[in-house]
Amino acid sequence: MRLGEGVEWATHCLVVLALLPEGEALSARRLAEYHDVPGPYLAKSLQALATAGLVTSRAGRRGGYRLARPASAVSLLDVITALEGSQPAFRCTEIRRRGPAAVARGAYGPVCAIARAMWRAEESWRRELAATSIGDLAQTVLSEAPPRAVEKGGAWLGRVLEVRRGSAG
Amino acid sequence: MRLGEGVEWATHCLVVLALLPEGEALSARRLAEYHDVPGPYLAKSLQALATAGLVTSRAGRRGGYRLARPASAVSLLDVITALEGSQPAFRCTEIRRRGPAAVARGAYGPVCAIARAMWRAEESWRRELAATSIGDLAQTVLSEAPPRAVEKGGAWLGRVLEVRRGSAG
Repeated sequence: MRLGEGVEWATHCLVVLALLPEGEALSARRLAEYHDVPGPYLAKSLQALATAGLVTSRAGRRGGYRLARPASAVSLLDVITALEGSQPAFRCTEIRRRGPAAVARGAYGPVCAIARAMWRAEESWRRELAATSIGDLAQTVLSEAPPRAVEKGGAWLGRVLEVRRGSAG
Repeated sequence: MRLGEGVEWATHCLVVLALLPEGEALSARRLAEYHDVPGPYLAKSLQALATAGLVTSRAGRRGGYRLARPASAVSLLDVITALEGSQPAFRCTEIRRRGPAAVARGAYGPVCAIARAMWRAEESWRRELAATSIGDLAQTVLSEAPPRAVEKGGAWLGRVLEVRRGSAG
């Protein structure tokens, strides 16, 4: 069982967007540059976040991605659902209704006990993911980052936003 | 994120093995017949359960698979780990240490806050899976199955075990 790489990338991007000054945005190219990940692949993840309504994007030199709602209202579950869909990890194909012991469909209870147990466990996972917001993570990431990394990241962001504002020539 | 089909098949097989009379075993071919699933593919899942020490197998006409320990001591987590491995679903590639804000490796805390949150959620899932045993499931499956299905399943098993004992000619 594996989550795609896009989940890691998208979550880091959302944390960066959560830390942007009010009203600012970043392009897919800049987000890829900041995380040193392949731009075209990251763009696909960002588009999935946009489709799910977690970020908005605007074209143009001052455009780019920004959070569509407060970072405290975007959970890890939202991110994973945006990128991986909401289908359960365990898929029940109702094999209880096959083979020599099979009886009429209507005789079985609505959900096999095995599927129920598997889905109950997935529910715990989802509940925990839903309880963690990008806002929480952004605070933790910022407070735990090496001070020199915060400084370098801030300097990079300052330069990028300056260019966007057109004040860097 | 998706668990392989083998997880469903293997769990159903373990439930059947848990319900076998003391000392009896079933071959991969019979388990495939009972669940109406492709034998060669099921055999791979059963071998994974054997490698993980959840079942034992013996060759020969009286051989086959049986549980390696009491059904109450085999959890859904054991089954999923046997078939899918124990790697986390979220894989951290440490992208926090890349790009223009990167600093020396040693300056970072041991685990990125994002990976910690993802793994905490997976831990809830694993905890729930570990709390459900094949023994519990076997009782529930048996009590919830349509009475006619229990009868037909029991009749099938009776015939199969009779053939194994050589008393059916």
